[in-house]
Amino acid sequence: MSQEPHQEEQVQDLGEQEILKRLYTFCPIDVVGDDAALLSLSPGHCLVVTTDMLVDQVHFSDHTTHPSDVGWRAATANLSDLAAMGAEPLGITVSLGLPGTLPITWVEELYRGLTDCLNQYQTAIVGGDVCRSSVTTVSITAFGQVHPSRILKRANAKPGQVILVTGVHGASRAGLELLLHPEKGQTLDQISRDRLIQAHQRPCPRLDVISLMRQVMTSGEWGVGNGEWGSEIAAMDSSDGLADAVVQICRASGVGAVLERDRLPISADLNALVAEGEISEAEAIDWVLYGGEDFELVICLPPAMAEAVMSQLGEDAAIVGRITENQDMILSDPTGTYSDDRLGLERGFQHFQ
Amino acid sequence: MSQEPHQEEQVQDLGEQEILKRLYTFCPIDVVGDDAALLSLSPGHCLVVTTDMLVDQVHFSDHTTHPSDVGWRAATANLSDLAAMGAEPLGITVSLGLPGTLPITWVEELYRGLTDCLNQYQTAIVGGDVCRSSVTTVSITAFGQVHPSRILKRANAKPGQVILVTGVHGASRAGLELLLHPEKGQTLDQISRDRLIQAHQRPCPRLDVISLMRQVMTSGEWGVGNGEWGSEIAAMDSSDGLADAVVQICRASGVGAVLERDRLPISADLNALVAEGEISEAEAIDWVLYGGEDFELVICLPPAMAEAVMSQLGEDAAIVGRITENQDMILSDPTGTYSDDRLGLERGFQHFQ
Repeated sequence: MSQEPHQEEQVQDLGEQEILKRLYTFCPIDVVGDDAALLSLSPGHCLVVTTDMLVDQVHFSDHTTHPSDVGWRAATANLSDLAAMGAEPLGITVSLGLPGTLPITWVEELYRGLTDCLNQYQTAIVGGDVCRSSVTTVSITAFGQVHPSRILKRANAKPGQVILVTGVHGASRAGLELLLHPEKGQTLDQISRDRLIQAHQRPCPRLDVISLMRQVMTSGEWGVGNGEWGSEIAAMDSSDGLADAVVQICRASGVGAVLERDRLPISADLNALVAEGEISEAEAIDWVLYGGEDFELVICLPPAMAEAVMSQLGEDAAIVGRITENQDMILSDPTGTYSDDRLGLERGFQHFQ
Repeated sequence: MSQEPHQEEQVQDLGEQEILKRLYTFCPIDVVGDDAALLSLSPGHCLVVTTDMLVDQVHFSDHTTHPSDVGWRAATANLSDLAAMGAEPLGITVSLGLPGTLPITWVEELYRGLTDCLNQYQTAIVGGDVCRSSVTTVSITAFGQVHPSRILKRANAKPGQVILVTGVHGASRAGLELLLHPEKGQTLDQISRDRLIQAHQRPCPRLDVISLMRQVMTSGEWGVGNGEWGSEIAAMDSSDGLADAVVQICRASGVGAVLERDRLPISADLNALVAEGEISEAEAIDWVLYGGEDFELVICLPPAMAEAVMSQLGEDAAIVGRITENQDMILSDPTGTYSDDRLGLERGFQHFQ
């Protein structure tokens, strides 16, 4: 009999998705698998919960990230998951695993970054736990509430809907590039450089879009009976990339999508980097689709609703494509310059790969 | 100028309590500092949230604790915090930091232990996160709900109340002793040994006591107007020891307490160990007061209410003392065998010391 070591299946042999799939077997099927968990509280109230763990050297590093930026981004990531469900934030808890030699100022700066972001959304840190660990670990749980008829599930995408994307994409990835390679981006002015770096270090969750959509939808022009418009809209945030959001929505809904290349909302500063020849156009499109961490919303909804939302958001949103019955996910170029391309997740975040 | 390294204040220079005190300055003062955080949802609904982080080699070890027991105890610890607030559980989230070489069966067994415990209380794992880490880390957040008038705060203790304690104490600590020193406890029969080990590995949160108290209090015999009895009762769980719970309640309420030594609810199996001469009586009392991890409830309430609760719980509860105006916390011996002793926290859990 062979005596190979490590015959047992290990965490590293499986992807994050496969691990989650196995753990989902222990969870009720109707509450897991979206941006956040949903729990019915009482008629008219739904609790939304999302949780995130950040580990030193995996999600941040003392050398490249200031602790206040770690805090800000962690707050944004969790609030963005609430926004993607159509929920309003209620509060967050923070659990910390801390090495004994960590300066206490690191922890205080982390909390400063967290609260600086949260304060913008009238949200507080309401509890936590502190324990010793050999590696700095930050675990955040955020909870929010949403009326059951206004929940924006990933599985709500339907053929005929258009795909609306808020803000611009690729800016966070470009900001990271400037931080990693300070020699790059010298052709840009200081304001543009700062804006890209800001996009990476201080992204904002689009809770403003959720409250604006609520206003638009309840204005009564939509003929959506009893304000039950949630089921007409699918949403996800673009934390893992614009392409990832489209793919996840399509998979959850059993539909496909066509994105039009020339409609993708590219950051103007990123376009400037292309114009100056610092990066190629293909690289820019790659950052827009797969860069991640822009924390914008990808929303699938009927064309008329989309127009109403667009009329409020103006240049802060774009309709980039449509949902199809055919389950392919395609990046097409109506101008004919590029051939059609399939969206893939190979370039998205998979922390165990 | 001197160039001493580490002049900066480090996490290890401060205790857990001091770190939490500094972080509380970033939090709203009215929601932090109890067993769990409280958030108003809507009239008649209060969300209760508690969070816990467990780290390999600090809170558990692969060599001494089976992952299903780690899961069970983590579920109990969190549900016990909800019980201590008078809340019913709604669900928990689990975030995991996992080394790549960890067998996936470890994670599955952890989840099995979690769900085995949770299923007893119709509570589910509703979400989570998985990421890579150099040290196995389990972060759990539990949420529950309670009617605002039935919240059992630590700060509700008042002179004249008696101190009621559920279950028995010291059993978890005795079980740990048998696990650490298998040569001990051989004078006990197998059933007693198993019961002590079970008390350590599979403790249960006293949510049953909370639902029983709700029945007793709403039976209408108490003359408590509008069912607003929560403010008449202080509670905390004994996860960090019976003495710790009494001290924390007294500090939060600005009162003192007298515990009567001969009324302390000592596990019968622990008494057998004393009778067989395996441990001293003083050691047994020490385990009862400071051993911790029994996850029982320490409840301060008016004598008449206490009697009503006792009449339902029978031998599963004991009145062990009373709340005093004088802020001292005393262990007294009405039989006169031992002199009065002050309760201290030196022997309680302080993970950074």
